[in-house]
Amino acid sequence: MTIGVLGGGQLGRMLGLAGIPLGLRFVFYDPTADACASAVGKHVRADWDDVDALERFAAEVDTVTYEFENVSLSAVEHVAKVRPVFPNTAALRGTQDRFDEKSLFRSLGIPTADYRAVDNRSDARRAGAELGYPFVLKRRTGGYDGKGQRIVADDSEAESACDELAGGSLVAESFVRFSREVSVIGARRASGETVFYELSENTHADGILRTSFSRPRDPMAGQGRELLTRLFDLLDYRGVLALECFQRGDKLLANEYAPRVHNSGHWTIEGAATSQFENHLRAILDWPLGSTAGIDCAAMINFIGSLPPVDDFLAVENAHYHSYEKAPREGRKVGHATIIASNRAELERRVAGLRAGVAQQADRS
Amino acid sequence: MTIGVLGGGQLGRMLGLAGIPLGLRFVFYDPTADACASAVGKHVRADWDDVDALERFAAEVDTVTYEFENVSLSAVEHVAKVRPVFPNTAALRGTQDRFDEKSLFRSLGIPTADYRAVDNRSDARRAGAELGYPFVLKRRTGGYDGKGQRIVADDSEAESACDELAGGSLVAESFVRFSREVSVIGARRASGETVFYELSENTHADGILRTSFSRPRDPMAGQGRELLTRLFDLLDYRGVLALECFQRGDKLLANEYAPRVHNSGHWTIEGAATSQFENHLRAILDWPLGSTAGIDCAAMINFIGSLPPVDDFLAVENAHYHSYEKAPREGRKVGHATIIASNRAELERRVAGLRAGVAQQADRS
Repeated sequence: MTIGVLGGGQLGRMLGLAGIPLGLRFVFYDPTADACASAVGKHVRADWDDVDALERFAAEVDTVTYEFENVSLSAVEHVAKVRPVFPNTAALRGTQDRFDEKSLFRSLGIPTADYRAVDNRSDARRAGAELGYPFVLKRRTGGYDGKGQRIVADDSEAESACDELAGGSLVAESFVRFSREVSVIGARRASGETVFYELSENTHADGILRTSFSRPRDPMAGQGRELLTRLFDLLDYRGVLALECFQRGDKLLANEYAPRVHNSGHWTIEGAATSQFENHLRAILDWPLGSTAGIDCAAMINFIGSLPPVDDFLAVENAHYHSYEKAPREGRKVGHATIIASNRAELERRVAGLRAGVAQQADRS
Repeated sequence: MTIGVLGGGQLGRMLGLAGIPLGLRFVFYDPTADACASAVGKHVRADWDDVDALERFAAEVDTVTYEFENVSLSAVEHVAKVRPVFPNTAALRGTQDRFDEKSLFRSLGIPTADYRAVDNRSDARRAGAELGYPFVLKRRTGGYDGKGQRIVADDSEAESACDELAGGSLVAESFVRFSREVSVIGARRASGETVFYELSENTHADGILRTSFSRPRDPMAGQGRELLTRLFDLLDYRGVLALECFQRGDKLLANEYAPRVHNSGHWTIEGAATSQFENHLRAILDWPLGSTAGIDCAAMINFIGSLPPVDDFLAVENAHYHSYEKAPREGRKVGHATIIASNRAELERRVAGLRAGVAQQADRS
């Protein structure tokens, strides 16, 4: 059985590492020369609009998935004519436009920050008047890792941000004063069977995820699962789905969803009985889903820009190193580590220490 | 960093799966077309005596290891002229001849079954007289998975077995009435740092390993580690080393050693903080070794001949499926599963049940 993956980055790489023991083979479609998933499968290098290459790719594989949500929708639709693609195109389409995504959440009764469509400077000023300052102005399409968005403090900044971002239509969102950021990750297969991981508690800096902690028995887990279930059902979903939320008081506000394995679930490789990568594959193949039972204290720390030297890092006890074999570049996710500890205080202390070390090393490089 | 592996079977495949997250790349040298390690690296297909191919292979890699001990010694020696090879050739040479291997054990004060060299029928009868019947007659070189050996009950069988096995010189070994079979697995790096896994308790049938149980806090662990340490020191060893032993009373008798990752250590992938595959790579690269701390109840069951269908098997709770993507063939190791349980009685019960199911399915196929 061969899985075709649209995109050949680290998520594809980790899907391959999880799927090879299941007897699966992988073909990755990616326009870039250095697609790091090529370590675990064949790399088809072609552009997203190369219809012939897409057809050859589809002919080589049995089932198709994708590893990032900004994958070309027309490419996915083209492949979907001849091969099953999961998660389905409705799930993908729903996340490609931030305004539509928020509207989808609202239609399901899923709370979000207040938001407005912004197409010009006067819309931007009106958003400021209605939502209050500061608010967040984002491109409706194409952004990731904090790219394509600005926090604006007044009318003047609203107008200048509107000019800077004018690569497409925009959405203005209320600035949420949250107590924490969490994500809820689950998997659903065709039969409707679903599983959920423990809640992830996340920290970002400069718009990029830095750490995720598994939070067993979190008081907000039930609410998160309930929201995810509404999306699962509406989209007749197959695969792993991640919903990023802000917590304000005792309420979760949905920020965005990702129809794929998610950075905030990387701790499941060592921290859960079955990783999100294996469960994504099981789900898209309609195989029985694996236990998500977790160990009590696991966290993930992202390596941004550059990797700590492996031979130093491996001296850290109960730390699992994951290089993506990507060239160093400022702001780029080039690897992560999972940290396992025997109690929560120790986990927090060790992650804080490692994060400081990683930041220092990134500054030097 | 690129690791060259002589041999491209399932052990190479699992080395690759463990090493890719560490940022390593792999090249596998294997004469067979369907080397299953090719899923995780480049496959150089050439014969063991193809000096040009060996040189090209060596030029592509930084450090070389091997994944089976019957690899051609001359090939290893050829590669070792231009690239570091670990474990070293002394460790490899010591295990390629069963008579020399026993003699090595004895020279280190490591107990073994009594043994004799056998070169002809009269040697075979004399061995029977001296060791008693039954005894085991084995080819000195080349056997694995019970191939190339016979249990003989009397003079007549001793002579006929001598004729049947006469592809090389032979060794006669006392038949050990053991209480159990165990293996001790550890890793050593250049600095002399060593780690040891929990003792593995093994069952064989038809000369092929069927199950291995991790045995935390086993009363024989200390003795096993002491024996392994003698080999580590004598051989100035780098890498993972496995020593298979019979237990008789409160004493371990060494049967054979394997200078590589070992089938009886496959449970370490899910059952220990750091797998034997990752620690082998760390050891040959002189990187810090990883914790071998284990979970309490883990076992491995081999899939021999054919695999259980993945979609059935994945419904088994806390069972981890490992396909080697090898064509089914009687007596061939084509995969394994790791079983995790919350207590020892449950583990024994579940492994027994699965083993019966696997045997039944193999009979049908």
